[in-house]
Amino acid sequence: MQVQVIENVLKLNDDVARLNRAALHAAGIFTIDLIGGPGCGKTTLVEKTIAALRDTLNIAVIVGDLATARDAERIAAVCPQVVQINTGRGCHLEAHQVRQGMDRLKLDGLDLLIIENVGNLVCPVGFDLGQDAKVGMFATTEGPDKPAKYPHLVDVADVLLLNKIDLLAHVPFDLPQFYADIKHLKPNAQIIECAAYTNNLTPWLAWLQARITAAKK
Amino acid sequence: MQVQVIENVLKLNDDVARLNRAALHAAGIFTIDLIGGPGCGKTTLVEKTIAALRDTLNIAVIVGDLATARDAERIAAVCPQVVQINTGRGCHLEAHQVRQGMDRLKLDGLDLLIIENVGNLVCPVGFDLGQDAKVGMFATTEGPDKPAKYPHLVDVADVLLLNKIDLLAHVPFDLPQFYADIKHLKPNAQIIECAAYTNNLTPWLAWLQARITAAKK
Repeated sequence: MQVQVIENVLKLNDDVARLNRAALHAAGIFTIDLIGGPGCGKTTLVEKTIAALRDTLNIAVIVGDLATARDAERIAAVCPQVVQINTGRGCHLEAHQVRQGMDRLKLDGLDLLIIENVGNLVCPVGFDLGQDAKVGMFATTEGPDKPAKYPHLVDVADVLLLNKIDLLAHVPFDLPQFYADIKHLKPNAQIIECAAYTNNLTPWLAWLQARITAAKK
Repeated sequence: MQVQVIENVLKLNDDVARLNRAALHAAGIFTIDLIGGPGCGKTTLVEKTIAALRDTLNIAVIVGDLATARDAERIAAVCPQVVQINTGRGCHLEAHQVRQGMDRLKLDGLDLLIIENVGNLVCPVGFDLGQDAKVGMFATTEGPDKPAKYPHLVDVADVLLLNKIDLLAHVPFDLPQFYADIKHLKPNAQIIECAAYTNNLTPWLAWLQARITAAKK
């Protein structure tokens, strides 16, 4: 019975995700679902990405946390359209929550929707939100073994970020092991090093811009 | 129907947790459930704690991860009794998994059982495993807002650790805000700063030793 219930929940989620995707594509919006552990730097990445691109792109953000509106308040400083979703005890965003967020945004004229998921390397992985790309984020401060220990994120992510590369000298982090573990799980994985806090984001911004441009064609 | 199923799962878990607790107490064992995000330093804390205490205490470890036996392999270097539980897609340990782990340990003569939960600040919080104390772990590298954003862990934890205090100079971390947020949620919270990697663990070891001694009385 439990499996049946879970299957129904996932099917309902996927149905809503399909509606989200259709609405977002109809509006010409490219959407990413940003997934990473607590404190890997997701919100800083969102802030700096918007600051870098806002002169050329219209961007909105839906951000999920169990509690507080702190991320939305931070992002609002650089982005006029932000919706905070509080999940209570929920460990990930679901498609219907994104749908509610979309209802509160002016989609017309948007180029990019960033969904910042709840800080968690497990639960957000299996839920389609209607995104075009899942972005998996790790950080040097977490140690090099996270891809091997959270392989499902590596599996579903369209691109993997290794953030806080600027702290490499201060933390124990075996960079070759990090790359080898990912390549073992997914030989064709795309991995981008970055440092959101210190604005080392050029390859990430290039990836994102290329995907947005390709989606508009 | 879904709520009913979840209630049944939680009730079954709590029943098994009670059996675990009874068996552990009968054997004179003090048990902690260590909960923290991915890469906050749980395994390093376990390694260093055992290295510091193994001359005076008999210690065993049950460690949960979605995949790999890496944590168990690391801990085995300092601890003869380690069981790795692989949860697959499971985002936390459950009491029956701890029970299976206990079946593979020689409980007789043990003083301390450390259960290192899956790296996650949400899902492990609501599950009783049969522990005597839940230890909530944060790290300076995660930023200061994690207690406010994961309030349920603060609520249930018997003690909160702030790890990687040695990296304070290298990361943006507002220490007064971290303390204020916790005190706002839980005025009597006990908070211990530590740095597992550089062996700055004295107050943590004192807390643990005091709890083990009190439990034996």
